[in-house]
Amino acid sequence: MTKGSNALGRHVLVEYFDCDSESLNDINYIRDAMLTAAEKSGATVVNDVFHLFNPHGVSGVVVIAESHLAIHTWPEYNFAAVDLFTCGTEVDPWIAFEFLKEKFKAGNHVTMEMKRGVLAPNGRNIAYKPVSSVKKDKKMRLPSV
Amino acid sequence: MTKGSNALGRHVLVEYFDCDSESLNDINYIRDAMLTAAEKSGATVVNDVFHLFNPHGVSGVVVIAESHLAIHTWPEYNFAAVDLFTCGTEVDPWIAFEFLKEKFKAGNHVTMEMKRGVLAPNGRNIAYKPVSSVKKDKKMRLPSV
Repeated sequence: MTKGSNALGRHVLVEYFDCDSESLNDINYIRDAMLTAAEKSGATVVNDVFHLFNPHGVSGVVVIAESHLAIHTWPEYNFAAVDLFTCGTEVDPWIAFEFLKEKFKAGNHVTMEMKRGVLAPNGRNIAYKPVSSVKKDKKMRLPSV
Repeated sequence: MTKGSNALGRHVLVEYFDCDSESLNDINYIRDAMLTAAEKSGATVVNDVFHLFNPHGVSGVVVIAESHLAIHTWPEYNFAAVDLFTCGTEVDPWIAFEFLKEKFKAGNHVTMEMKRGVLAPNGRNIAYKPVSSVKKDKKMRLPSV
């Protein structure tokens, strides 16, 4: 259960924009970054799978004892979608977020943290409370619609 | 890109409550359910990893050509957190949702669909638009706070 909360887990959804395109198509670089991000955040790595698509793009997931970290990249758009789903009080998904932001040289990002598995005080009845907080980078570019 | 949208993907976050506890601790049952859910939704399975925790609980991810499906179970709370992240117009994550709801005999559920990787019309500047829709089951129990 997460600290100061009755949720089983916390899930940070991340959109990284304006990333280094070459990094986003390098499966070894991405796998290493994701595994290191897991370790730095305090997670225990259980297993991982990564896949390089043709003509480009990488998908990968690191299963951790505390849930999972996932990534999907679109090098052609300098974009990566990342999920940092962690449980317990020992793991900090935001450390993974900061580390990956640097690794992919993300010029912009938007994040949203969701609570997953919200428990009622009696611990029996579980109710989902879609509590979220959105952080927008100050330099965030909006589409020129 | 998803139909009628400028998003690269759609991500359905699912909380299944009041599930069959035994199913939620059966790694083979869960893996089979997740792989079948992927196929039924029209996805192409690339790889998968599943892990049974001690004393209980299963985590698993199916990497699909169109992103991923993930599950984490808490049999002790009859609860499972599921993520159905799909790209393209050929895959319907809601088919996976309905299938898994039946497989785990979920008495209640809450879902939220997020758009991931929202593109501007010019296809260059990507902006995240945290558009979401929450579906609450009519029978949804709220915590007895």
